[in-house]
Amino acid sequence: MKVVVVGLGLIGGSAALKLRQTGFATDLVGVDRNDKNADKAVELGLVDNISDLSVVAEAELVLLAIPVTSMEAVLPSILDQIGEQTTVLDLGSTKERIALAVKGHDKRSQFVAGHPIAGTENSGPEAAFAELFEGKTGILCDVEESSKSALSISRDCFNHLGMHLIEMDSKEHDRHIAYVSHISHISSFVLGQTVLEIEKDEASIFNMAGSGFESTVRLAKSSPEMWAPIFKQNKTHISSALEAYIDNLARFKKMIDASDEVDLIKTMREANDIRRVLDGINGKAKNKQLV
Amino acid sequence: MKVVVVGLGLIGGSAALKLRQTGFATDLVGVDRNDKNADKAVELGLVDNISDLSVVAEAELVLLAIPVTSMEAVLPSILDQIGEQTTVLDLGSTKERIALAVKGHDKRSQFVAGHPIAGTENSGPEAAFAELFEGKTGILCDVEESSKSALSISRDCFNHLGMHLIEMDSKEHDRHIAYVSHISHISSFVLGQTVLEIEKDEASIFNMAGSGFESTVRLAKSSPEMWAPIFKQNKTHISSALEAYIDNLARFKKMIDASDEVDLIKTMREANDIRRVLDGINGKAKNKQLV
Repeated sequence: MKVVVVGLGLIGGSAALKLRQTGFATDLVGVDRNDKNADKAVELGLVDNISDLSVVAEAELVLLAIPVTSMEAVLPSILDQIGEQTTVLDLGSTKERIALAVKGHDKRSQFVAGHPIAGTENSGPEAAFAELFEGKTGILCDVEESSKSALSISRDCFNHLGMHLIEMDSKEHDRHIAYVSHISHISSFVLGQTVLEIEKDEASIFNMAGSGFESTVRLAKSSPEMWAPIFKQNKTHISSALEAYIDNLARFKKMIDASDEVDLIKTMREANDIRRVLDGINGKAKNKQLV
Repeated sequence: MKVVVVGLGLIGGSAALKLRQTGFATDLVGVDRNDKNADKAVELGLVDNISDLSVVAEAELVLLAIPVTSMEAVLPSILDQIGEQTTVLDLGSTKERIALAVKGHDKRSQFVAGHPIAGTENSGPEAAFAELFEGKTGILCDVEESSKSALSISRDCFNHLGMHLIEMDSKEHDRHIAYVSHISHISSFVLGQTVLEIEKDEASIFNMAGSGFESTVRLAKSSPEMWAPIFKQNKTHISSALEAYIDNLARFKKMIDASDEVDLIKTMREANDIRRVLDGINGKAKNKQLV
């Protein structure tokens, strides 16, 4: 199958590697507005060659792995240019605005809104690796808007990447993902920022950092260019999730200020229940596919 | 050497395992006010047998690995009971209140205030493993208050556990550790709490959680009984660190509400500098010992 990958970073590059490895893609063309990334992607063997966007006319599958605001801007014109047999699958982290951008488009049914719940704190073509998606969840949104053949190719693609699939409405997606992904990233970025501010006066502080600190600030290494558009596109849901988080932090701080050990222990016991959720995440890879 | 371990959880149990393995401890006695933990520790071979606190009189080294408020309460009476050749080394996460509790005690010089920067989100004797401390930082505080022989035994103990050592003042310790450990735990506990609150209405939300979420909420599995006393003892420093964190989060939320992509990117770029710090943490194990 001829696959065009638009955006040759961690996500697009990793998908390209895996789809070639499994034989799903026999012909891989890359598109990236950053020439250095494009050259690097060819050098690393992620794609066979580089083209401009017009190449989507000949593709069987176009994978979109660019920042979500660029996606919103460019997707309608990509649909204008595709052939009758082309499927376009996006891999972005927000879905509602993308859905609006193509609503009513003549070729809407050739588009599938996807979100692979996979990533690392690293970015760019050098960060790509074939196993990124293995055992992770792949979400398909608003499937009733896509044609059977476009859905079939997209499911096949996610299966070849090693993901198990779930389906949901794009609004529901954006509301939930604010809680289980977006505020995790914000809590980590801001924790990194706060501790670095203190470090200016206290040079020795990081001699004392351990694995717990490392775990909570790991995501602060993530790409600002990828995340600012996500925060902007999903701001309504993120804002309310963040408000709840800040309120709970302020309440926790009050308990500490009051040395209220009873309420502190009660709150932490409730939070301990996250163990059940995390065990569920780790068990997911073992479950059979949901779709 | 005859070693008494008071508190047979993750920290005390792991130290016991490693000190036996390296031959540092030839005779290991455990003390725990929880009979179930005590029995389990013998069953798991963490210690040879169980005794009450009076056993400290015969010990060459007493390791204290109990919640920090219990430590503060019990440490003076332990010092009252020890023999002339006994060294007491505590392994708690706060140091200033412990230092005050023994200030002016006749046997102050036989006590060494330590803090191994090591732990996991698991607790209890079953969570213990010999390699917990390997390559981690061991902090010794207020060393000028301890005798040469007590310091020598304590350094030897930390070296046998596999740690590299740094020294600092107990006040400085508590101020810094609030930033690089205590607010990491709070950010994680409260993130877990916030997402669980939403889950009540949105049962499917955790199908969507990925490794980023897992990383930031891992510490929310930690023991409330261990952490409430730490938050209480270090509340002044934690409160100001937490205030800075909440202020920065509120500022970040404002940028999102205003779709201020420029300032969002600027803030995240600054936070990206945490990569330098984390590379430093991972490089530490390779460095030669600092003390």
